[in-house]
Amino acid sequence: MKCAVLGPEGTFSHEMALKVCGRDIMLCPTIGVVFAEVASGGCTGIVPLENSEAGGVGETLDGFMKTDCHITAEYYLPVRHHYAAAVPVGEKPSCIYVHPQSHGQCSRFVDDLGVPVIHTASNAASAKAAAEKPGTAAITSAPAAGIHGLKIIRENVQNSDNNVTRFVRVEKGPYPGGYPYDSPDCRKCSILIDPLEDRPGLLYEIIGVFAAMGINLSRIESRPSKRGMGSYVFFIDFAMTSYSGDAVRRLKEITFVRELGCYSGTEVV
Amino acid sequence: MKCAVLGPEGTFSHEMALKVCGRDIMLCPTIGVVFAEVASGGCTGIVPLENSEAGGVGETLDGFMKTDCHITAEYYLPVRHHYAAAVPVGEKPSCIYVHPQSHGQCSRFVDDLGVPVIHTASNAASAKAAAEKPGTAAITSAPAAGIHGLKIIRENVQNSDNNVTRFVRVEKGPYPGGYPYDSPDCRKCSILIDPLEDRPGLLYEIIGVFAAMGINLSRIESRPSKRGMGSYVFFIDFAMTSYSGDAVRRLKEITFVRELGCYSGTEVV
Repeated sequence: MKCAVLGPEGTFSHEMALKVCGRDIMLCPTIGVVFAEVASGGCTGIVPLENSEAGGVGETLDGFMKTDCHITAEYYLPVRHHYAAAVPVGEKPSCIYVHPQSHGQCSRFVDDLGVPVIHTASNAASAKAAAEKPGTAAITSAPAAGIHGLKIIRENVQNSDNNVTRFVRVEKGPYPGGYPYDSPDCRKCSILIDPLEDRPGLLYEIIGVFAAMGINLSRIESRPSKRGMGSYVFFIDFAMTSYSGDAVRRLKEITFVRELGCYSGTEVV
Repeated sequence: MKCAVLGPEGTFSHEMALKVCGRDIMLCPTIGVVFAEVASGGCTGIVPLENSEAGGVGETLDGFMKTDCHITAEYYLPVRHHYAAAVPVGEKPSCIYVHPQSHGQCSRFVDDLGVPVIHTASNAASAKAAAEKPGTAAITSAPAAGIHGLKIIRENVQNSDNNVTRFVRVEKGPYPGGYPYDSPDCRKCSILIDPLEDRPGLLYEIIGVFAAMGINLSRIESRPSKRGMGSYVFFIDFAMTSYSGDAVRRLKEITFVRELGCYSGTEVV
């Protein structure tokens, strides 16, 4: 089945898709288009959910809010950023092109360089900009540097060698549910909670359901409900245990819960 | 005192700074530079913290993690996005330039337009790109459209007329503390919690401190600790009550808490 993913060629999303989908890839201009393609049927999608340095990917979280797509797998991609330029730039380039998320992930190197920083729309755009303006440089991925003919001056300029992006595979339609809770293919679950009303103490009650059953939350991320400032929904990931089904049933009694999927949480690429 | 803010001219940050700082503004290339300027002394800063549609601003949260700057005020700016072009584009432009956050805030209009979407690094960059390529269009702010000579084709294309960005004023050094909890200048407090270790149930314990004292949390946002995937810190905003000081003292007994400031939460621009 075709696999929709954020392009252009040379993005980390593209690199991830090449590893898990093979060659049958549809490059999309935005993550929103990836979700729209998956929701309309006929393809699966690979989207970045969070990065260990830069945090959650808002467009992906919004994709889950706008469509009924569900998650069927997760993958971790170690992220390697490189300092690259088209021609020798001497000690300092006139400026450096970098995507804001990549800047967050390489802030030490970029800020120590002490040259003007120009934010771009993607790592591929950074490479393209540096290729077009001699004397400038870029922070980019190895594939994007290769595509735009940049020479890598210094490898691995990310702050942390533990820099990892978590991707998920999304498929059409709501999560069918009823997954066997003791299956090795089902180690982690994701849900989306929309409190609908801002009742004081509700978040405490929600987290308390997990605490009471000894279920470890691996992540909780708030996201605007889009109903106005101060109103949020929550994306929660938790470990699958023999009580996790009970926890979800209990949560559904107290608030609005959408199951996003249960999947293997172990695959590392 | 000079006021550092994200540029270029025509950004919403610039618009906000003009309203609250007057003319003595220093335009910075990134939000990280705003924090660095404030931390090194001699200026105050205005930074976007969250938007009611697009969520938290990661670079601002990271600025608090990297410096010891504190918050002294907050301001709300209604966000108005416009569809604009340099020359008449007929029924459809060949493509539309839009910043990813603005895309999130105008997704209905942009997606209904049905033309290729090109993401840019800022609303000002969107306006500039559309000005340079006849036949294309941009989603941008009124000031940026004016600076780049674009004509506004359709006003207010944001999804929600309640679209608001929350800005905070940041100042040098740690929050001095000891603020009188019954002052009208101190209605809301912000803290940064770094659990340091991922102890199961710790988040439940933290939120329970507020619940036990009847203190309303207005926001909780997780952010990577930068120590590796799955390790998070939490930005929490809560209402100032006569118990809020006790709550912070209690929290400090159970985890690492940094006070980011107490400030008036009522000013709307």
